[in-house]
Amino acid sequence: MLDNVRVVLVNTSHPGNIGGAARAMKNMGVSQLVLVDPRRFPDQQASARAAGADDILQNARVVATLEEALADCVLVLGTSARDRRIPWPVVDPREAADKVLDQLAELPDCQVALVFGREDAGLTSEELQRCQFHVHIPSNPDFSSLNLGAAVQVLSYELRMQSLQRQGQPTSKQKVETANSQNEMPVTGDEMEQYFVHLQQVLVEIDFLDPQQPRHLMPRLRRLYGRMGINRMEMNILRGILTQTQKAIGMKSAGERRR
Amino acid sequence: MLDNVRVVLVNTSHPGNIGGAARAMKNMGVSQLVLVDPRRFPDQQASARAAGADDILQNARVVATLEEALADCVLVLGTSARDRRIPWPVVDPREAADKVLDQLAELPDCQVALVFGREDAGLTSEELQRCQFHVHIPSNPDFSSLNLGAAVQVLSYELRMQSLQRQGQPTSKQKVETANSQNEMPVTGDEMEQYFVHLQQVLVEIDFLDPQQPRHLMPRLRRLYGRMGINRMEMNILRGILTQTQKAIGMKSAGERRR
Repeated sequence: MLDNVRVVLVNTSHPGNIGGAARAMKNMGVSQLVLVDPRRFPDQQASARAAGADDILQNARVVATLEEALADCVLVLGTSARDRRIPWPVVDPREAADKVLDQLAELPDCQVALVFGREDAGLTSEELQRCQFHVHIPSNPDFSSLNLGAAVQVLSYELRMQSLQRQGQPTSKQKVETANSQNEMPVTGDEMEQYFVHLQQVLVEIDFLDPQQPRHLMPRLRRLYGRMGINRMEMNILRGILTQTQKAIGMKSAGERRR
Repeated sequence: MLDNVRVVLVNTSHPGNIGGAARAMKNMGVSQLVLVDPRRFPDQQASARAAGADDILQNARVVATLEEALADCVLVLGTSARDRRIPWPVVDPREAADKVLDQLAELPDCQVALVFGREDAGLTSEELQRCQFHVHIPSNPDFSSLNLGAAVQVLSYELRMQSLQRQGQPTSKQKVETANSQNEMPVTGDEMEQYFVHLQQVLVEIDFLDPQQPRHLMPRLRRLYGRMGINRMEMNILRGILTQTQKAIGMKSAGERRR
């Protein structure tokens, strides 16, 4: 899905940031990296920070101009930290991801680019005018400039999140298999009632609950346990504790009798 | 809004990552940093990567144990890359942000923690069991481990995004009123720990838990009780039941002795 998305880094000064960007991309399943006139590349610092995303660095395309990097792209989004004199369509990272995915849904074979500027100065006005949309990461206005790798991370993350959601894939690792197992099935209302009967009985036996003056103890415990969403295995544990409590009272007295 | 959210970094090896995390936090308006037993801190590399977020580093609290870091927290979320044997409630970063903001909306003065593990090994199973929720960043399964600063960036970004989106929405007045009473205040991490210590003790006393063969009983009970959102009144009841169970075993034997 994200094979046709390229990350374009313009005039990057610190090779470590190229490595950080590569790692962030690979973490999120984005693989195409294009470097426009990087200060230092290849470089050991890039490889070190890539931490295993060396394939992204090895396959990175190095070009001289932004024009070359964007030549075959139908949609270009550029990151921008600052307000610009000329108003431009500005989107947040989530909207940016949606723009990209809409484009790819419409035209699966097209190429899309996300452009990131220099560490110190971002993209020039001219470069930003090459982009259909400006992406603004909604940062703290008093400290708005993200590390380059962090900015690539945020946009790649949104691409993956929105992409997984569109495919109907879980974004949090839901444990489908375990939930299918009997142990993870939620208990029924009946089973909950049986638990409360058992619990009340034990509370009376340990003299915690006075049946003549129940106060609001059982309703409170009902509210507490009711909101837990107890599964079968957990219910077995809870019932086991009650049964064992009853045995402990009995066993203790039996032990005492033997003396 | 995010003043009461703390980022907790456990046993960080590379001080550069502490700086990267601080910068990511400040970019997103998160300011509380707690470092559990960092390998090297303070350190020049941390300051270099913080790139202006020095205030976060200067105000960072360094503690010896995770327990200290979480003592006053009512909600704890821990990042986890891997599958665990015991299924735990897993949320994605967006859901995690919603959990945090829901908690802060209900109880504006409470403390909430996001916990991040070691660069190489993440959080231990024991540390993860201290967390009500596990946060999984939906990364590429073949290359799933994010840089520490990048992970802090993603979670802080989602906190800011969700927080901005919520602004302007009416807060539930009803919840604020009930939460104001002491009884309805959620218990702290410390109080939960004391409960689990007490529970474990009683389970051993009633012979339900064999300390030599604990299996997964305590983790399972931690998961169960951890997701309840227990308030003070409920904790008093739960502790009262445990104390009364201990008395019932003792009283019964005392009663038997009298016969």
